Amino acid sequence: MSFVYKADPVRGAVWAELFARQMPDLPFRIWPDIGDPRQVRYLAAWQPPDDIAARFPNLEVLFSTGAGTDHFDLSAIPATLPVVRMVESGIIAGMVEYVSLAVLSIHRNWRTYLEQQCNANWQAHRVHPAASRRVGVLGLGMLGRAVLERLSGFGFDCAGWSRSPQRIEGVACHAGPEQLPAFLMRTDILICLLPLTGSTRGILSKPLFDQLPRGATLINVGRGGHLVQEDLLQALEDGQLGNAILDVCEPEPLPPGHPFWTHPRVTLTPHIASMTQPETAVEAVIGNIHRHRQGLPMIGLVDRVSGY
Amino acid sequence: MSFVYKADPVRGAVWAELFARQMPDLPFRIWPDIGDPRQVRYLAAWQPPDDIAARFPNLEVLFSTGAGTDHFDLSAIPATLPVVRMVESGIIAGMVEYVSLAVLSIHRNWRTYLEQQCNANWQAHRVHPAASRRVGVLGLGMLGRAVLERLSGFGFDCAGWSRSPQRIEGVACHAGPEQLPAFLMRTDILICLLPLTGSTRGILSKPLFDQLPRGATLINVGRGGHLVQEDLLQALEDGQLGNAILDVCEPEPLPPGHPFWTHPRVTLTPHIASMTQPETAVEAVIGNIHRHRQGLPMIGLVDRVSGY
Repeated sequence: MSFVYKADPVRGAVWAELFARQMPDLPFRIWPDIGDPRQVRYLAAWQPPDDIAARFPNLEVLFSTGAGTDHFDLSAIPATLPVVRMVESGIIAGMVEYVSLAVLSIHRNWRTYLEQQCNANWQAHRVHPAASRRVGVLGLGMLGRAVLERLSGFGFDCAGWSRSPQRIEGVACHAGPEQLPAFLMRTDILICLLPLTGSTRGILSKPLFDQLPRGATLINVGRGGHLVQEDLLQALEDGQLGNAILDVCEPEPLPPGHPFWTHPRVTLTPHIASMTQPETAVEAVIGNIHRHRQGLPMIGLVDRVSGY
Repeated sequence: MSFVYKADPVRGAVWAELFARQMPDLPFRIWPDIGDPRQVRYLAAWQPPDDIAARFPNLEVLFSTGAGTDHFDLSAIPATLPVVRMVESGIIAGMVEYVSLAVLSIHRNWRTYLEQQCNANWQAHRVHPAASRRVGVLGLGMLGRAVLERLSGFGFDCAGWSRSPQRIEGVACHAGPEQLPAFLMRTDILICLLPLTGSTRGILSKPLFDQLPRGATLINVGRGGHLVQEDLLQALEDGQLGNAILDVCEPEPLPPGHPFWTHPRVTLTPHIASMTQPETAVEAVIGNIHRHRQGLPMIGLVDRVSGY
């Protein structure tokens, strides 16, 4: 019985060390040095091999090393093989930090002040109470919930939207396509934390932007594929959107000369909102192996129909 | 019996409206239209008149319209006249927002990413866990405590220093000159929220900077007079300090050509970290008038010896 890791080998070495200490009875191997493939019961991968079923006939669980599984071709993975997303505290903490920073930077005109400094311009802008800023999160998984909890703590007027109904204390939760317009209508700062699936690809597009209040801000920390880039450029041009902060793009990195690089109201960061921390990631994976062996439901188990 | 307001008249009009609604029995007057000076029992001022004692013989309380009283010449104010600082939730919320934004921007390399974007450079920097960042607050009044509470919520390793011993849950509190070195030694991000007094003027200077870990960050949201500007420039030059974020300066605004305007590792904002919100300010002042009438201690009463 063995565990195979197939992702960034530098991080893999850290995983190996942590496994050796915390689960010494389970042989840990780093791709491509997989040993006897019939022994492999667990695979943690950013990109699983195309021939996963044939290569690992006794595989019991496929772990994603990322928070999503949109980089997996689920159709190539046996329907009976459990697929588990990475749900670990490091990813959550990083995302809460990034989104808090992004929202506060809009709320307190941070970029405007940096630009004013370049022009030796000492000009104060009015501080609006946080309660007057309507923040909305698309996607109410672990990340969306954690972000809303922190932003509520600052006093922002918070709402959320998800496919299926959710309840979060102090947050107005909307669900399903029929409640999306009401959610968008009241959202000054929109944060995308959706999983990327067939039904969410391209959701950040003109029809959605047009339902936001004029001058709204878009923060995309989901995936680059959620955004229709030309619609964002047009909405910024028209003034329908005031600003965009993008941590994800398609492709990554953006090609040189892409208009986002130089757009005065687009802030770009290189997919750094949140990264898996090996320490907490290994803790999460080992926790799930124990759960699996005891017949308990694993945390982050992907519903193969919804894709998340 | 009347109340006189002597500060920005635009805000004064908002105060007048709020007083008319919440304390209609107390005539509210805006300087210089003060009516009969013998009737004036309460004065709220940014700059009190020089002849305050002679002009208002029956004055019972002097309210500062700001969080500090360093803009008051306390020696010109009768020793028996109670002086009250502005302690209101709007100031606190604004400060917590600004400092959270400033600390997160350092923690997550925000300015580096903005600069990289200008150069079409897609390069990720490592995300350090918040627990590995040692944040320290100088000054543990209402603002310092509120800031530490919020930063602790992000998981930063938090400590505080004040003149007299304080206790804050989850925060290592240091007190007095003898404990200042231990506090500085463990502080990667230093936040100044001290009152400006004779003993704190110029505290942010070479001897203090030299006790911080190499490459530390300074965030000054106290007063410009806390900082020895040439020592900061030298410390940034030497690499002893890595960055500075300054919301206050002396003078304000800084003169054109001042090196802070163009320094690549100085971020300047025009004294906007926190501003009194009329709604919450009036609530605080009226609350204190009631306390004063009932013989209860007023919130924010200044100790005339310590100066805060």
